Amino acid sequence: MNKGIAGSAGYGVGKVVIISDAKPEYENRTITDTDAEIKRYDDAVAAFTEKTHAMAEAMKESVGEHNAEILEGHILLLTDPGMDEITKGAIMSGTCAEAAFESTCDMFAGMFQMADDELTRQRATDIGDIKVRMLKILTGTPDMNISEVPAGTILVAEDLTPSMTAGIVKENVAGIITAVGGKTSHSAILARALEIPAVLSVDGIVDMVSDGMTAVVDGCDGICILDPSQEEVDEYQAKREKYLSDKALLEVYRGKDTVTADGAKVHLYGNIGNPEDAKQVAACDGEGVGLFRTEFLFMGASELPSEEEQFQAYKAAAETMEGREVIIRTLDVGGDKDIPYLGLEKEDNPFLGFRAVRYCLQNKDSYRVQLRALLRASAFGDIKIMVPLVTCVDEIRSVKALVKELMAELDAENIAYNKDIQVGAMIETPAASLIADLLAKEADFFSIGTNDLTQYTMAVDRGNAKVAYLYSSYNPAVLRSMKNIIEAANAAGIMVGMCGEAAADPLLIPLLISFGLGEFSVSATSVLATRGTIAKWSKAEADELAAKALSLATETEVAELLKANAR
Amino acid sequence: MNKGIAGSAGYGVGKVVIISDAKPEYENRTITDTDAEIKRYDDAVAAFTEKTHAMAEAMKESVGEHNAEILEGHILLLTDPGMDEITKGAIMSGTCAEAAFESTCDMFAGMFQMADDELTRQRATDIGDIKVRMLKILTGTPDMNISEVPAGTILVAEDLTPSMTAGIVKENVAGIITAVGGKTSHSAILARALEIPAVLSVDGIVDMVSDGMTAVVDGCDGICILDPSQEEVDEYQAKREKYLSDKALLEVYRGKDTVTADGAKVHLYGNIGNPEDAKQVAACDGEGVGLFRTEFLFMGASELPSEEEQFQAYKAAAETMEGREVIIRTLDVGGDKDIPYLGLEKEDNPFLGFRAVRYCLQNKDSYRVQLRALLRASAFGDIKIMVPLVTCVDEIRSVKALVKELMAELDAENIAYNKDIQVGAMIETPAASLIADLLAKEADFFSIGTNDLTQYTMAVDRGNAKVAYLYSSYNPAVLRSMKNIIEAANAAGIMVGMCGEAAADPLLIPLLISFGLGEFSVSATSVLATRGTIAKWSKAEADELAAKALSLATETEVAELLKANAR
Repeated sequence: MNKGIAGSAGYGVGKVVIISDAKPEYENRTITDTDAEIKRYDDAVAAFTEKTHAMAEAMKESVGEHNAEILEGHILLLTDPGMDEITKGAIMSGTCAEAAFESTCDMFAGMFQMADDELTRQRATDIGDIKVRMLKILTGTPDMNISEVPAGTILVAEDLTPSMTAGIVKENVAGIITAVGGKTSHSAILARALEIPAVLSVDGIVDMVSDGMTAVVDGCDGICILDPSQEEVDEYQAKREKYLSDKALLEVYRGKDTVTADGAKVHLYGNIGNPEDAKQVAACDGEGVGLFRTEFLFMGASELPSEEEQFQAYKAAAETMEGREVIIRTLDVGGDKDIPYLGLEKEDNPFLGFRAVRYCLQNKDSYRVQLRALLRASAFGDIKIMVPLVTCVDEIRSVKALVKELMAELDAENIAYNKDIQVGAMIETPAASLIADLLAKEADFFSIGTNDLTQYTMAVDRGNAKVAYLYSSYNPAVLRSMKNIIEAANAAGIMVGMCGEAAADPLLIPLLISFGLGEFSVSATSVLATRGTIAKWSKAEADELAAKALSLATETEVAELLKANAR
Repeated sequence: MNKGIAGSAGYGVGKVVIISDAKPEYENRTITDTDAEIKRYDDAVAAFTEKTHAMAEAMKESVGEHNAEILEGHILLLTDPGMDEITKGAIMSGTCAEAAFESTCDMFAGMFQMADDELTRQRATDIGDIKVRMLKILTGTPDMNISEVPAGTILVAEDLTPSMTAGIVKENVAGIITAVGGKTSHSAILARALEIPAVLSVDGIVDMVSDGMTAVVDGCDGICILDPSQEEVDEYQAKREKYLSDKALLEVYRGKDTVTADGAKVHLYGNIGNPEDAKQVAACDGEGVGLFRTEFLFMGASELPSEEEQFQAYKAAAETMEGREVIIRTLDVGGDKDIPYLGLEKEDNPFLGFRAVRYCLQNKDSYRVQLRALLRASAFGDIKIMVPLVTCVDEIRSVKALVKELMAELDAENIAYNKDIQVGAMIETPAASLIADLLAKEADFFSIGTNDLTQYTMAVDRGNAKVAYLYSSYNPAVLRSMKNIIEAANAAGIMVGMCGEAAADPLLIPLLISFGLGEFSVSATSVLATRGTIAKWSKAEADELAAKALSLATETEVAELLKANAR
């Protein structure tokens, strides 16, 4: 058994096909006819561009537009004037196109590799992918054809590059195992989009397998088993069938209202990171968007996105949701999210630092751009504005005052917007929880961010393995905090939702029903399951369980109680 | 006006005397009679040792034993076998003693300078001090005699080394200004011990002044004024007189009980960092020790202090307090406090990391040593054990179980200890505040740590200037949290104290009286002032103010109210 990262849920059993993406060999020649060599290079670039466009088109069909953009990005990288100039400069001095291009790629990859942020480092992987593909074209090496693997294949690779993934026929691939990559790597995103179970970051996996070897992929627990025993094969086949049938069973909840067992209606929304994701929420039967994390719009760019760019993104999400609610969180930069061009200083404790609304209120020029874009987009759907990391009443007041100012501006410019747009507070700090009643007088709605709320309440960095044992929403302190927040909102008559991971936790859902949560916002793939869990609990049953849970003194006791009562 | 760090409170006006600690010039000679040169070096070391012992003795009188130890430490550094060997090696190869010693010092200072922790870097300053003094002895340069400065002197120096400070006659020095040093530097510690106003870290100060120039030192606000106008001189003379008369007025509270205006008795204790500090608490009329921060015992060492060393330290504090309560906090490592030999990993958010009781419960071997030392010392006074950074009931239970185990061990070894020793919880996380009622069933007492409580509640690193505007105990959320904690403790019938800085805040004291705080633990120098403030408020008046404060929605309004009602 080998442990890795659970990159995409599900179970798969099949035969290994190793996808080696080895760089083709070539002879490093000295060139005399440099003009001809430059033409050869230009032809290769043209061939690369044509092929990549075709792959991207195919990908749009299989996994959606957003993912296909990764491949389109490869063309931009390759045809970057800097890259082109340096490569051709080397050719002019007599280096062959292969060597010239390779050394240019290595230089760029090296630069990207040194970056502090995951996103820029990811570019180094992209460059590696481009390099191998260009060298194949230049040397005439045939492309490996992933689309021809037989049914029941477990793909094993160092890393799945976007160009490899483009060819995957999902019916034939039972699972994916890679040696590198995390939950947010291209491989993980694409595997999830294709609904193929995947385990990533299994050290040295390529050297441990051979083509045709049987392997089990457990993408739920992040485990793979090589050369499994018959018992293990049977066990995982059974798990796979149960997983698929559970998934199918959930289909009965499609198109239904989200109601408790005694018929009380709650809202069930999806969390998204870009407008494209909204389509998945709609496809998964989400009733709205409870959290649109706008920082992805900023992180993917090299400078502040303009008002127009932001407007288009927010409008697209609103239009996709066709009049259903779309709660858009304003920029939540800082903490573990860096945006290099904002030039934030390094902090000793970034989670306790200059982030989210703190940053925005001190950088009003860029905040105005985002708020104006949101207001303009509000004319095209039911957009609500959500302010992250609130700790005091002044912050909400300041944002509302700014929104009012911008409304007057838009009025003067005769630009349409929703005059009744709501401005809500994300409740994710102990301070906000403690003064939830005061905030409820200022904010139009609440959404509880359980990840940060748990982190700050327990004084535990959620990324720190040494203290992970304390990071649990089942802690009595966290449960009480959630209850206080929900009750304060209901007492004030404002909507209260939850957009942290806890909203999709089947063990926690009865407590949230009991506390009076009005809106659950979960990942698109959890929508049907969450609707299913909510349907299993009446308010009275939930109250009984909540009373028991709140009488317990420790996280362990609460977790045991909730597990014993799981539905 | 020049801004620096407020190193020691008070106001001073006087004439500048620049204390330059320039290294004496010497000729770098080649030595042929190396034996004679080594003898010359040994003689210098002997002279240094003798002089330093004498200075340390004088310092014991003026500022206490602990501070004198800094000077004694210089002898240890100088006679370190490594230092001796390297210097003599250089002399043997023909370098003169001055050059040999200087290069050895520079090497050691360079090493210390690279360290991550303030304490080790401080050693580099010590080495610099030793170097200059040894070179003076070797070259026969007369020692600068700080003890001869006239009355009304403002000392100005790059840095005040311990050896300089040793000669200070406090009656003659009206103030101190230095170019380097922070609140915890030797200069600051010694200035406070001598009660001389000091402003530190004033960039380039030595080049800005000349001997005889008039200067104002405002050690309360960290400001100095060079060549002040007559108005400024008058203003600061008046401030100085008010400061000193306020201080004298406080003397009426010496020897009195700590009681509210309507006669309710509360405890008024001091916070200490080492056993020596306990003497200052007793001298300042503190009624006990509310917080003994044991990490200083660990930070000053190069390996874990043994049970015997710890026992002696805890026993000394207990004996100094002569049967009065001494609350000793177990090791609070991590966060902003590193102890290099513990080998803690670097963390992204150390304040949300592996610290305090979390570290101790995962390193039970060393925790047992500390708890055993505390139990043994409990036979010599009224020692209580306090557990920092509690977030859940299990932590207190685990510590109590460990204490019980160790009691059985001590019983078996026939070693005396207080069988009724109390184990309390420091309440400084939002989680602990939220479950204060549950913790009150397990802990024998509470002490509120307002610094961390404010930090975690507001999700603000207290050291981060960018978000300092949010770090205030007057925030409604923090006030509510304090109130909850105090009420939960009182409901359970356990003692509740406060050992954070807020306990000495005259603006906050009426609210703490209203909430029902039973024990105030403050710095030794704040004891009398705190007793004075407590004496000015009756419970009824405090309740009235607290009701008003709790009805306000913002920190600004609370601060204004409290300022308007200051007594």
